[in-house]
Amino acid sequence: MRVAMYKVGIVGGTGYTGVELLRLLTRHPDVSLEVITSRGNAGTAVADMFPSLRGRLDLRFSEPDRDTLAACDLVFFATPNGTAMKLVPDLLASNTRVIDLGADFRLKDLSVWSDWYKLEHACPEWVEQAVYGLPELNRAAIAEARLVANPGCYPTAVILGYLPLLESQLIDPEHLIADAKSGVSGAGRQPQQHTLLCEANDNFKAYGASGHRHLPEIKQGLSQIAGGEVGLVFVPHLVPMTRGMQATVYGRLRTSDTDLQALYERRYADEPFVDVMPAGSHPETRTVRGTNMCRVGVHRQPGSDTAIVLSVIDNLDKGAASQAVQNMNLMLGLPETAGLDDIAVLP
Amino acid sequence: MRVAMYKVGIVGGTGYTGVELLRLLTRHPDVSLEVITSRGNAGTAVADMFPSLRGRLDLRFSEPDRDTLAACDLVFFATPNGTAMKLVPDLLASNTRVIDLGADFRLKDLSVWSDWYKLEHACPEWVEQAVYGLPELNRAAIAEARLVANPGCYPTAVILGYLPLLESQLIDPEHLIADAKSGVSGAGRQPQQHTLLCEANDNFKAYGASGHRHLPEIKQGLSQIAGGEVGLVFVPHLVPMTRGMQATVYGRLRTSDTDLQALYERRYADEPFVDVMPAGSHPETRTVRGTNMCRVGVHRQPGSDTAIVLSVIDNLDKGAASQAVQNMNLMLGLPETAGLDDIAVLP
Amino acid sequence: MRVAMYKVGIVGGTGYTGVELLRLLTRHPDVSLEVITSRGNAGTAVADMFPSLRGRLDLRFSEPDRDTLAACDLVFFATPNGTAMKLVPDLLASNTRVIDLGADFRLKDLSVWSDWYKLEHACPEWVEQAVYGLPELNRAAIAEARLVANPGCYPTAVILGYLPLLESQLIDPEHLIADAKSGVSGAGRQPQQHTLLCEANDNFKAYGASGHRHLPEIKQGLSQIAGGEVGLVFVPHLVPMTRGMQATVYGRLRTSDTDLQALYERRYADEPFVDVMPAGSHPETRTVRGTNMCRVGVHRQPGSDTAIVLSVIDNLDKGAASQAVQNMNLMLGLPETAGLDDIAVLP
Amino acid sequence: MRVAMYKVGIVGGTGYTGVELLRLLTRHPDVSLEVITSRGNAGTAVADMFPSLRGRLDLRFSEPDRDTLAACDLVFFATPNGTAMKLVPDLLASNTRVIDLGADFRLKDLSVWSDWYKLEHACPEWVEQAVYGLPELNRAAIAEARLVANPGCYPTAVILGYLPLLESQLIDPEHLIADAKSGVSGAGRQPQQHTLLCEANDNFKAYGASGHRHLPEIKQGLSQIAGGEVGLVFVPHLVPMTRGMQATVYGRLRTSDTDLQALYERRYADEPFVDVMPAGSHPETRTVRGTNMCRVGVHRQPGSDTAIVLSVIDNLDKGAASQAVQNMNLMLGLPETAGLDDIAVLP
Repeated sequence: MRVAMYKVGIVGGTGYTGVELLRLLTRHPDVSLEVITSRGNAGTAVADMFPSLRGRLDLRFSEPDRDTLAACDLVFFATPNGTAMKLVPDLLASNTRVIDLGADFRLKDLSVWSDWYKLEHACPEWVEQAVYGLPELNRAAIAEARLVANPGCYPTAVILGYLPLLESQLIDPEHLIADAKSGVSGAGRQPQQHTLLCEANDNFKAYGASGHRHLPEIKQGLSQIAGGEVGLVFVPHLVPMTRGMQATVYGRLRTSDTDLQALYERRYADEPFVDVMPAGSHPETRTVRGTNMCRVGVHRQPGSDTAIVLSVIDNLDKGAASQAVQNMNLMLGLPETAGLDDIAVLP
Repeated sequence: MRVAMYKVGIVGGTGYTGVELLRLLTRHPDVSLEVITSRGNAGTAVADMFPSLRGRLDLRFSEPDRDTLAACDLVFFATPNGTAMKLVPDLLASNTRVIDLGADFRLKDLSVWSDWYKLEHACPEWVEQAVYGLPELNRAAIAEARLVANPGCYPTAVILGYLPLLESQLIDPEHLIADAKSGVSGAGRQPQQHTLLCEANDNFKAYGASGHRHLPEIKQGLSQIAGGEVGLVFVPHLVPMTRGMQATVYGRLRTSDTDLQALYERRYADEPFVDVMPAGSHPETRTVRGTNMCRVGVHRQPGSDTAIVLSVIDNLDKGAASQAVQNMNLMLGLPETAGLDDIAVLP
Repeated sequence: MRVAMYKVGIVGGTGYTGVELLRLLTRHPDVSLEVITSRGNAGTAVADMFPSLRGRLDLRFSEPDRDTLAACDLVFFATPNGTAMKLVPDLLASNTRVIDLGADFRLKDLSVWSDWYKLEHACPEWVEQAVYGLPELNRAAIAEARLVANPGCYPTAVILGYLPLLESQLIDPEHLIADAKSGVSGAGRQPQQHTLLCEANDNFKAYGASGHRHLPEIKQGLSQIAGGEVGLVFVPHLVPMTRGMQATVYGRLRTSDTDLQALYERRYADEPFVDVMPAGSHPETRTVRGTNMCRVGVHRQPGSDTAIVLSVIDNLDKGAASQAVQNMNLMLGLPETAGLDDIAVLP
Repeated sequence: MRVAMYKVGIVGGTGYTGVELLRLLTRHPDVSLEVITSRGNAGTAVADMFPSLRGRLDLRFSEPDRDTLAACDLVFFATPNGTAMKLVPDLLASNTRVIDLGADFRLKDLSVWSDWYKLEHACPEWVEQAVYGLPELNRAAIAEARLVANPGCYPTAVILGYLPLLESQLIDPEHLIADAKSGVSGAGRQPQQHTLLCEANDNFKAYGASGHRHLPEIKQGLSQIAGGEVGLVFVPHLVPMTRGMQATVYGRLRTSDTDLQALYERRYADEPFVDVMPAGSHPETRTVRGTNMCRVGVHRQPGSDTAIVLSVIDNLDKGAASQAVQNMNLMLGLPETAGLDDIAVLP
């Protein structure tokens, strides 16, 4: 029987990432959720905002308070970009570990970060020390990290799609094409016209086709793997569904005689949350909904020198909240899969 | 630590009720799923048909075999109507307990049953002994039962909606109106034209408005509560969504000074799976998706003598699979909530 | 060949009712759309906001201007409640006829109106003169009217459902129950949290169950038909789809030997936009999408004394924009069906 | 006033392409729909199968009859692949012109056709004479054709996306990548498990990633434009919506100083059904729903040598039925846009 319960907190838990963290942490066997802050909703019972938690979580949103947060072993930031960087240094100084689900600590190149997020960084020194929280890439460093930058959803799906191909130098790294599709929840819980049901339902469109802020994050991750700069075209699309994300990634093969299926199966054999589907498979987003799984299918068309990899995740889970819990497990020395054993609800 | 693992089996597990049972039993702490049968898919790995179970359930569909099933402590039947009644008596004779998720043992009046299901019953003696598996109504009898008839989805939602009102004799039992709405999964996994996405999506319609086979089942349940015949109009509708069901039930009040909210809160105070929402609430089906919860809202309009109760469940869970697990827990003497602690995935 | 083109204008055309009016008027054979106003979007090309109109409508939103509007033969108001009442009297004084798609002129009882809309009325004298624009009820008066109050969507569906039953005195008018279901577009194009795709998709719920502002409007219409006060319970629900509305209405029959099917067929035989489906039918909302049709199905359950009528419309068309065009046709002496010959796009 | 009404017929009109043809031809000003055949539904009123046509089309499905069809000026085949090739030669011999919406006459290379469709061709001589019915490519030939092979939906979207780039030799034709996304209606009206609402809803997946039968058709079209063989990777995906298709096509530019936006605007300036959106636009499928429009957006990412073109159509219209009507208009010498002036119903 596990004894020690770690204390954790959430800063900014009223968005979609927040409510998913709440669900996962409420049922996690080894942690106790002590505090969840929200300036706008302080005093409101969490279960009043999210009735799915009625009877399961008896907690109210509170004003952010340094001492309460510092009393936690680990704090998640699910705040708008630019917020965490102001609060994190103080918490880290108190030996509280931090996972930021926003983008404040993801990009090592601060000038690129400032270009995309239109902000000046408040603590560049912590950007350097932050570990990019993709366990399949940086597991050991995450376990040691005091500050983890939780990856974006698109970067997670795309990087896991390319990882074995790039690592093995099998494709031309200069001409990568990632065509990605996301459910609407990626756009968040703030009311916006283009995410109304009547605007997004029964409709399909690309967005950010001339440039998206996840592009530099993906390139940084792919470059780490390739051991040098990569060239990438990345086009995101909006799918009329709530959750789920697929990246269809294309790479020009340098040799034609590689067994891609075997390559992927070998690379991911020990990964608890990456499932290489049988040859010829087309993974479906619904099979990972509400879970931390990434499922991958590998294809090549007759006579073609292009590898095609289909990579699906739940954008709010492996692309956000459950990957944060996976990182927490690593940081706290818990079993990596603790609290992450949900099976997707089908249909 | 719980020690004894009960052995359970499923007959006919390839429909939507079946895959949901698989998900729940795979993660249940006190039972071990020993066998799942399917004539048409014997030999197929369960996870090949339902990729959500990849890596979680290492079992193949098998031909129905009496001895294998009889070795189980309890067997679920998730078969088409008319199948269970042929196989159940033999199993019961071996001291294996049975929960039938179909309609074979729900109606005590066999002539009514034959009228609606167009079959002659194969074991009338077991119909008499079967307990109707609505724990909120028959908890004690379920715990003792050898054979439980798991309720239909509409009956569950409607009966839980009316229960406190009828039990307390507060409404006219002769003129009940239940207007019910269901997601498409209630129609099953067999390909049919009207349940194609292109037919059901962005569309709304009633069906069975001149009579539906759940009507006699609901009337039987309500009559048990009212202590006499009831008059009921029941109209089901098809909602363009996968899961979820709402019954909006109407009852003419005999007195105008009752506190309906208090009545419902009192009646369901100790029920682990019925949640009476605060006064003025409108429960949403998504807050119970993938769970065993029924959420209820109680309303009256100014100057009106009609009580309005909104009752929502997941048609595949409290309306089928998870209610069957709740019944199993009662029958095996396990905690009633064991394996039923999922929180709905929101959004 | 029709010669005279009537000049029409729209005040406030950026909502869902507005864009639907734009579509219908752009293709109408007998009118010319001269002006469309929007304070917030003056100067913007209509086709930039609604790309479906690219190449079809070469018009920009303009500031509301009295003279431009007064030069029109007829002006539609598709403005928030409380706006039309301030501008309409001046226009009417210039002999421009007006159709208000909002609620400013629907309720004859101004105290009830003030209770629900939380406003004091700016021109009570015009409320009296306004004609309630339900052609099936008030055709002759509409043709003569200078000011038409276009009905709400729920009132249209419910009143057309009850009309033959109430008119013929066949049901108890004291205990009417109307259970209505609407697509999300009824909530408008303004960003709101509960109409986001991620909140409304794959979800079902009631709203306004303790009282909705369409209740007094429906009662007023039904009372006109019944020739006296009616008692009505009205519960609206939100369906996860963009367009479409169904009212399922219930009435206790006073006699049991009436042929309801014949009653409905006879009453609506000459109505171009009400289609009584064959006996036993369940009309589907998608069959009226984008059209001015109301389809009706009539049911009674064995042994029951309750009439059940299923009435479906497109909430933005027969429930708003196309009904306004039907009223315009009547007011201008055009064929009632002019410009209203769309066939629903299936699937 | 147009006088002569051309007589047209449909063979096999019970699928989604069929009902859309019915809608378009019912309202077409210059043709009269004389006959619609269906072996399985002969005798059934069309409006009983498709209630959207109630009161609008008074026709019954009939057995295919050579003489009735031969009395038509033009006949559409909306039959399963392999059917048209058996009936068409006889009709053509009677001077009836034919548009085949299936794939029987699309591929000039019969061995490739046989590989993909698993059939031997019944009339190879007519394959040679058939004109590929993409007006933007073959307008003059279509006008003269006796037999038109109406393009597939994916080929239409992809070819219109690449046309200006390939024609102008601006991209490397050896490494084309077309990532396409389709609504579910492309899979037809026959009940299949994977197109059930409960399987396809709130889900996203690729299919045919290792090879799809539209691949050779697209390559044939692109090769005609490029004036030589092209290399193409084509991956289709299934979007949880009824109608709509987007092709996101990628091409490596040979020079970096071309104004792609101007190129597209120039090439499509006179095309009535191709709309090049303003620079930076992301066309949405809903803006073309129920219409014959193709909308195109052109993008390039900073520092990238890859052209990105977004091409959206309605898969059942410009991808099938309305494109067939456009071809019919050309073949009969009618205005090319006759009967094709619908505006998409928004929202």
